[in-house]
Amino acid sequence: MDHERIAVLAHEKFPDRAKTALGVLRYGDQEVCGVLDRDRAGDRVRDHVPDVADAPIVESFADAHAAADGDLDALYIGIAPIGGGFDESWRADVEDAIEAGCDVVSGLHYFLNEDDELAALADDHGVDLVDVREPDDDLTVATGASGDVDADVLLTVGTDCSVGKMTASLEIVAAARERGIDAAFVPTGQTGIMIAGWGNPIDRVVADFAAGAVEEMLVAVGDDHDLLVVEGQGSIVHPAYSAVTCGILHGSMADGLVLCHAAGREAVHGYESFDLPPIADYVDRYEDLAAPVRETSVVAGALNTKDVADDEAATEAVASFADETGVPATDPVRHGAGAIVDAALDAGLGGSDGQRESEANAE
Amino acid sequence: MDHERIAVLAHEKFPDRAKTALGVLRYGDQEVCGVLDRDRAGDRVRDHVPDVADAPIVESFADAHAAADGDLDALYIGIAPIGGGFDESWRADVEDAIEAGCDVVSGLHYFLNEDDELAALADDHGVDLVDVREPDDDLTVATGASGDVDADVLLTVGTDCSVGKMTASLEIVAAARERGIDAAFVPTGQTGIMIAGWGNPIDRVVADFAAGAVEEMLVAVGDDHDLLVVEGQGSIVHPAYSAVTCGILHGSMADGLVLCHAAGREAVHGYESFDLPPIADYVDRYEDLAAPVRETSVVAGALNTKDVADDEAATEAVASFADETGVPATDPVRHGAGAIVDAALDAGLGGSDGQRESEANAE
Repeated sequence: MDHERIAVLAHEKFPDRAKTALGVLRYGDQEVCGVLDRDRAGDRVRDHVPDVADAPIVESFADAHAAADGDLDALYIGIAPIGGGFDESWRADVEDAIEAGCDVVSGLHYFLNEDDELAALADDHGVDLVDVREPDDDLTVATGASGDVDADVLLTVGTDCSVGKMTASLEIVAAARERGIDAAFVPTGQTGIMIAGWGNPIDRVVADFAAGAVEEMLVAVGDDHDLLVVEGQGSIVHPAYSAVTCGILHGSMADGLVLCHAAGREAVHGYESFDLPPIADYVDRYEDLAAPVRETSVVAGALNTKDVADDEAATEAVASFADETGVPATDPVRHGAGAIVDAALDAGLGGSDGQRESEANAE
Repeated sequence: MDHERIAVLAHEKFPDRAKTALGVLRYGDQEVCGVLDRDRAGDRVRDHVPDVADAPIVESFADAHAAADGDLDALYIGIAPIGGGFDESWRADVEDAIEAGCDVVSGLHYFLNEDDELAALADDHGVDLVDVREPDDDLTVATGASGDVDADVLLTVGTDCSVGKMTASLEIVAAARERGIDAAFVPTGQTGIMIAGWGNPIDRVVADFAAGAVEEMLVAVGDDHDLLVVEGQGSIVHPAYSAVTCGILHGSMADGLVLCHAAGREAVHGYESFDLPPIADYVDRYEDLAAPVRETSVVAGALNTKDVADDEAATEAVASFADETGVPATDPVRHGAGAIVDAALDAGLGGSDGQRESEANAE
């Protein structure tokens, strides 16, 4: 996947229920030339989302194609219905995109490649249907090679699912680049993969290969950057998803961890009979579990204060979180991720000398 | 899979390189009516393995079928070449079994169901090809339901891969049954599944469903038994396989853990640059990681002393292991698993009152 100019499908859901579309607009390297939303056709992206590059909102792929003067590489499916199915009202847009020579990229549970009509049409037109939830066939077990990549590795870990690990990772990369650090985002979930244009969906990899699929990514890009920020998943004490978290923790062999939390969260999201342990316990737990594979430490905290009433309360919540974790913290969305990058630099990560475990503050 | 009378294929490898065949002979409920090994045809099983039910060793499936008076349910592939491929020299036996109306059960990486010739033949004869490494399609995420099953749950956990968790689990079940406890083995790997005749291969399940696949098994059989012994996999600090371990730990919501170790093991098997942490650390690590999902404790230790020179040295090694873990220990093969069952009973597990968390020693 290496798409430069794309259209994003977000029918009837832009912007608030179009998480993937918003993520691509905000963090993707691709140029979004049009957003498909038949309910808002005629509006502009900036009418709804002020802080991203502008683009027209259009009725159909045909309109996006015309607005882009016929110069598009791909159509991204930027929304996911509950259950991850394919909405038949999208079929005409997907077919038009294929017939216009565009790849179609989807994070749906429903695989486009298993849709016989779409697969045949894509074959006829020589384009790719990219199902980002479908792991590569050639993944295998980890070997420990993540420990040998040149770049420093920072991993976001969480107190729970849905606390903002992907967003924190992307904001850290952005803030690091602002400081002149050659940083790259390493995606591990479908939205991150669509934003980055590459990656392995660790939750869909067979459990034996979870660590290996992280290692495969780090080895692939480790020589090209100085700092890799790996998107974490789930939590190490999640009743359902801890296997994914554990595979990423050991597979990444991270040099530093960023603990992510959502302010006010006290029980596991969707599993409310399970209380979250105290914040400070997470620091010990992640460090202790990582140590036999690679010694590492939590270098900073990222607190998601989306549900906090105002800036003052958010600042207080961040201060309290920093106190509990014992490391510098910030809300990377509300306040930027600069404090996290500074903490990582203080811990010796992100140096441009191409050596891991180099002296502190090599930057 | 509910096979009563089976033949086991172990060509050129019985008994020392036929781990699955030996496991089925030693622990399976199925009656093994013949072992196929063309190198030892004419011998008896007891000529090589004294402590299991006897059966003829034969040249071919046809000979096994004749020796069993034509009364066989299935052929089990009891060996696995390096790489898990299908040896073409077995094809005639597999075809003969299918044509005789027998299911064929395999733990190979090579799926019999994806072999067009065998699949068509099986279809013609109305028999099943059972690829135990292929997970069920209907697995999903854990819900926490393992905490509600009536049976008590004991999980074997390890310091590493290949330390004897499956064998310890099977010996614990046998010892518990000797004490009149209605105990059942819950298999999580392909050999265990072939022995038990059911189960989910957790290492092959997508990482998001690892815990859910354990839960699905416990819920399925939890009402039928008083004690479930879950076969653990890998180790929580394994560079490649910890995701599987973590999913089983949280998915089983175990009431007690049995820490398994191989005497003399100091580094991760196959990953020798990674040292094993001190034994006592494992106890804390497993208990701490399990606690937020379910409070549990290591109730006993199982030490594999296969590579220890003699009984005296083995007894010393077991005593030393018990000292390090702080719980009773035994080598379940050399000395039996009675001490582990006693420790579990002392911890309040295995009572026949159908209540979890019942008073100690309900048995």
